[in-house]
Amino acid sequence: MAEVKAVALQERAIRTRRAILVAAAAVFAEVGYEAATISEILHRANVTKGALYFHFASKEELAQAVLAGQLATIPPPPPQELMLQQGIDEAFLLAHLLSVGDPMVQGSIRLTVDQGAPSDGLDRRVPMSGWIEHNIEILGKAKENGELLPHVDVAATARMFVGAFTGVQVLSKIMSNHVDLPERVSDLQRHLMAGIAVPAVLMQLDTAADRGARVYAAALRLRDAAEGAKVAEAEEVPAAG
Amino acid sequence: MAEVKAVALQERAIRTRRAILVAAAAVFAEVGYEAATISEILHRANVTKGALYFHFASKEELAQAVLAGQLATIPPPPPQELMLQQGIDEAFLLAHLLSVGDPMVQGSIRLTVDQGAPSDGLDRRVPMSGWIEHNIEILGKAKENGELLPHVDVAATARMFVGAFTGVQVLSKIMSNHVDLPERVSDLQRHLMAGIAVPAVLMQLDTAADRGARVYAAALRLRDAAEGAKVAEAEEVPAAG
Repeated sequence: MAEVKAVALQERAIRTRRAILVAAAAVFAEVGYEAATISEILHRANVTKGALYFHFASKEELAQAVLAGQLATIPPPPPQELMLQQGIDEAFLLAHLLSVGDPMVQGSIRLTVDQGAPSDGLDRRVPMSGWIEHNIEILGKAKENGELLPHVDVAATARMFVGAFTGVQVLSKIMSNHVDLPERVSDLQRHLMAGIAVPAVLMQLDTAADRGARVYAAALRLRDAAEGAKVAEAEEVPAAG
Repeated sequence: MAEVKAVALQERAIRTRRAILVAAAAVFAEVGYEAATISEILHRANVTKGALYFHFASKEELAQAVLAGQLATIPPPPPQELMLQQGIDEAFLLAHLLSVGDPMVQGSIRLTVDQGAPSDGLDRRVPMSGWIEHNIEILGKAKENGELLPHVDVAATARMFVGAFTGVQVLSKIMSNHVDLPERVSDLQRHLMAGIAVPAVLMQLDTAADRGARVYAAALRLRDAAEGAKVAEAEEVPAAG
């Protein structure tokens, strides 16, 4: 029984930490890092000061955690046979989450893109390096699978994709508050893929603007199914204990 | 003689206004809009409070002027036979000015990209719409000249170019403080051009990373020559009066 209690406590701590992070991300998304206050984050998360400082020592630590969690915020999309489709799906998922106003994604991306003060100590390279590495991995596999044209430089292309996506997102935020982002990412993907995919792969890629919404629904079903499996496993433990 | 004096006064006013704008842009580039103060701008510009408020009523008006002057900050590059080269040259010029730390370009781009507070009243669409319109014009002429592949949607491509450039610049700022920007813009241009230019044009385009520095030197020579001609003209007026 002590084990069950420890598990329950740990789960509560994880939930509290998560609630604080989401609240912080929402505040960062709305007012930026400089103007964000711990008291506003406490109010949104509906937790005590003690609980917040148990998990995070400072506003900077909160912001670093939001930045570090940027990649993990996106639920893994269903696996695809074509690695290029996998990469496209992830970009569309990110665009979908931005366009529907997901606070974690909006907050962490604002923290990354806003220049801030040199003294703020935030390392904006963390999420960017993460995206570049991740894209190098996807494009590397695509190359192994013969999906890429022979001239493609995987590292340069990965970096360029991350940069181009970032800017298309910034521009869409300015011009339409992200409403037109799925459309703009569709334009970008079609253009980028035409320069790197072999024709037989290119014609199979789905780059329609509503791809993000469809993939998101599928990713949630996948995640729910995985969590259902995990819960079933956890329930078995005490029964056996 | 009164005419000469009026011209001299007007020229002094233009120089003062310019000094204030450059100082403001430098402060915006360093600390962002929120943290920028009029007193720091006065100090940098070395002008009186009266002079500043004669030209600009508020920090907001200063920022709007920096934003509005973004396109005009770039000296016109030498005209090119190929419109696509013209567009490439402008992107490289902008990248060059960012990489050498030009305060007007750095300040106006930071004002555009930083999200700021909704209440700050800055209209970040002004420079972005300007760049999109300008790219539509260039790509439209390229299309008329037969430089573009038949499928190219000029408006969508122009918008995508502006977005992609913006992001490549943001990423380069984060990863290398703009040191690698000319290289990254070269990667971007080669990739983008391959998707829109007809082959005979594509093979003539110069997308080397040092293009920006070369075009900048040529643009300065052009501007100096034009200013020399203007000065000669101005000197003629009083002599004839």
